[in-house]
Amino acid sequence: MKNLKGNLLIAQSGGPTSVINASIQGVVLEAFKHPDRINHVYGALNGIRGVLDENFIDFKEEDINELKKLKNTPSAAIGSVRYKLKDNDTNHKDYMRLLEVFKKHNIRFFFYNGGNDSMDTANKIGDFLKESNWECNVIGLPKTIDNDLAFTDHCPGYGSAARYIATSVMELKKDVDVYDIEQITVLEVMGRNAGWLTAASALANLYNQGPDLLYLPEKPLDVDKMFLDVEEILKRRKKVFIVVSEGVKDLDGKYIPERFKQLPTDCFGHVQLGGTALILADVIREKYGIKTRSIEFNLLQRCAAHLASKTDINETLKSGQFGLRKALAGQTNKMVSFQRISDKPYKMKLVLVPLDKVANAEKKVPLNWISDDNTTMSKEFFDYALPLIQGEDKAKLENGLPQFAKLKLQPIKK
Amino acid sequence: MKNLKGNLLIAQSGGPTSVINASIQGVVLEAFKHPDRINHVYGALNGIRGVLDENFIDFKEEDINELKKLKNTPSAAIGSVRYKLKDNDTNHKDYMRLLEVFKKHNIRFFFYNGGNDSMDTANKIGDFLKESNWECNVIGLPKTIDNDLAFTDHCPGYGSAARYIATSVMELKKDVDVYDIEQITVLEVMGRNAGWLTAASALANLYNQGPDLLYLPEKPLDVDKMFLDVEEILKRRKKVFIVVSEGVKDLDGKYIPERFKQLPTDCFGHVQLGGTALILADVIREKYGIKTRSIEFNLLQRCAAHLASKTDINETLKSGQFGLRKALAGQTNKMVSFQRISDKPYKMKLVLVPLDKVANAEKKVPLNWISDDNTTMSKEFFDYALPLIQGEDKAKLENGLPQFAKLKLQPIKK
Repeated sequence: MKNLKGNLLIAQSGGPTSVINASIQGVVLEAFKHPDRINHVYGALNGIRGVLDENFIDFKEEDINELKKLKNTPSAAIGSVRYKLKDNDTNHKDYMRLLEVFKKHNIRFFFYNGGNDSMDTANKIGDFLKESNWECNVIGLPKTIDNDLAFTDHCPGYGSAARYIATSVMELKKDVDVYDIEQITVLEVMGRNAGWLTAASALANLYNQGPDLLYLPEKPLDVDKMFLDVEEILKRRKKVFIVVSEGVKDLDGKYIPERFKQLPTDCFGHVQLGGTALILADVIREKYGIKTRSIEFNLLQRCAAHLASKTDINETLKSGQFGLRKALAGQTNKMVSFQRISDKPYKMKLVLVPLDKVANAEKKVPLNWISDDNTTMSKEFFDYALPLIQGEDKAKLENGLPQFAKLKLQPIKK
Repeated sequence: MKNLKGNLLIAQSGGPTSVINASIQGVVLEAFKHPDRINHVYGALNGIRGVLDENFIDFKEEDINELKKLKNTPSAAIGSVRYKLKDNDTNHKDYMRLLEVFKKHNIRFFFYNGGNDSMDTANKIGDFLKESNWECNVIGLPKTIDNDLAFTDHCPGYGSAARYIATSVMELKKDVDVYDIEQITVLEVMGRNAGWLTAASALANLYNQGPDLLYLPEKPLDVDKMFLDVEEILKRRKKVFIVVSEGVKDLDGKYIPERFKQLPTDCFGHVQLGGTALILADVIREKYGIKTRSIEFNLLQRCAAHLASKTDINETLKSGQFGLRKALAGQTNKMVSFQRISDKPYKMKLVLVPLDKVANAEKKVPLNWISDDNTTMSKEFFDYALPLIQGEDKAKLENGLPQFAKLKLQPIKK
């Protein structure tokens, strides 16, 4: 499928990140350099939904200066979707519709930007187009703050979220230590199955400003042991700062809100939607009767573009450019992946991996990277994560506030 | 009390801010320039508690380079306290102890850095020392992200918190708009009685990236009207972004968690500690059955030094220096205050106001600055607040992470 000519379509999917738009910027601006091969550069609004609904925008209609601001604009600029395409057997209609849309708009290059599920979707689409004899180069562009994609050293978005978490933990640590009273703080960080984000809080330990205890989903939380540790730390320094992944489970394999479910159920009998930190803080308050506070980073950890890592932004831009060039070279059903050459100095190269390998795998934090006493992460983790949070790159300010990309997002005629 | 010689004591009190340490840096470095008048420059650890317990550090024992990092270090570097000194009648022991400590250490200059309660404490101490014929110049240094101190245009700490809130709201707005589904987000901002911080979220409206609805404690929240507004906005753009002060009350004068108290009580009968946003989001979810999310900035809004406003930091530094010079000139029982000369260009001067005037007053947002439809703030607010969030000044980075001041905080011999 070399020398294929036609139009390009890109879409974004899954939870957004601070730098996911850098992927788009990379693909789109690189595509503009190849008018001999690529005529229109389309974006589908709201992921695969926008493909099915033929909701396209034409990036050539956008102001080039605004497109250059995409790398510093958080969230998904052309909208996202939570939609995992089912198999062709059970969902033939969707596939037929996709084919129809691809043919109608002569889509010969398709980029899907997202996490695990999105790579699965891209893989299915790639396979189906091949079976249908519609020549089209399909490339997956990874993104996820969760950092849980397999067959890549790390994921675009993780470095920036990690930098946000480590910085905010250092700041919070200053705050939670300010009063000379017994006090426990429980901070909840995103991550259902993989604890990469919670691990990032340990980076603050480099300056003795990290958590006292941290719990990743990879390792069961021994609640009784946690109480013993809390008591010991309380005695020693009056304050305890706990960082916990939303998806942590106890020794019986139960989520924390599930274990203590009598607590979070309100009197209408509804399950209270309080998260892991809220409930853990309640349980600890109950037990010790001291001041306890729960904090959730919530969406901030995935959209705080003002703390994005320059390394992350640059790599993400490059992953888009690289993907575009590989698509032009005839590659298809591949995901752009990061291969680390060395930690010090940090060197990385871009490669392609088959989408079907990535699609249903998940990369977790190695168990032996978590300290036995749950107080920090190993040297291996620091060597791994520190290069990813280096440097600053953020939106220009006007009136003290960030100037994000303003896209028209004018849909083309169907 | 001009030409008084002796030692200086400074203490910090109340909830910390990103820039409260700039006040200390201002006082301490300025004090070092006057060895003819000031011998030791002491800090009391944990506010008035540290004074009573004679827990002092000597700033001359600290590394000057670390002291210069204070302006970019969040939280209270010498610790804070929540302790409002009672009247001398009811609490004579504390006052006698204070006098003893002041005499023992020859404290002739006393600075107290805090909000309303702290100014009240400083005022009581100043009065008592006068009555006791212990010559000492007592100066209050304002700080509070709440911005609710009277007799000052604004408070150190507010500009930085406002910048954090406006920036984060712009980022969150990008995130909450990302899916093409009906969704409501309720964001809770600090402020029990004054809505200055919630008002700051409206600054994001300058770029059409602010909240759809905002509720300040100054104006009762008409819950039924809110539902109507939510429905209208849902129809028009599927998403609703609400920003609410923690201390907002309904038309009957009830706090939101109080109004809906059947909801936040858990099945042990304990009052659920969920805040205003959590409960409002629950109520809205209940009513409309759509995806609803609550977010709390929590401590982040008062400790996010990486987003501090340079204007705020500079003014806070100057307020400390000014206070020191005024104390040397014999002023006592005064608070350093900001007087605005003009909005455009922004000009401000420092003045002194009597502590007893400030001590028990509270400055709220003028009602006519809140738009009738609760969607934004008036031009007057923008003119007022924008100058306060200008410029950047933050800690140097090492390993991508901020380098905060490291103080030894070695207590002197009692």
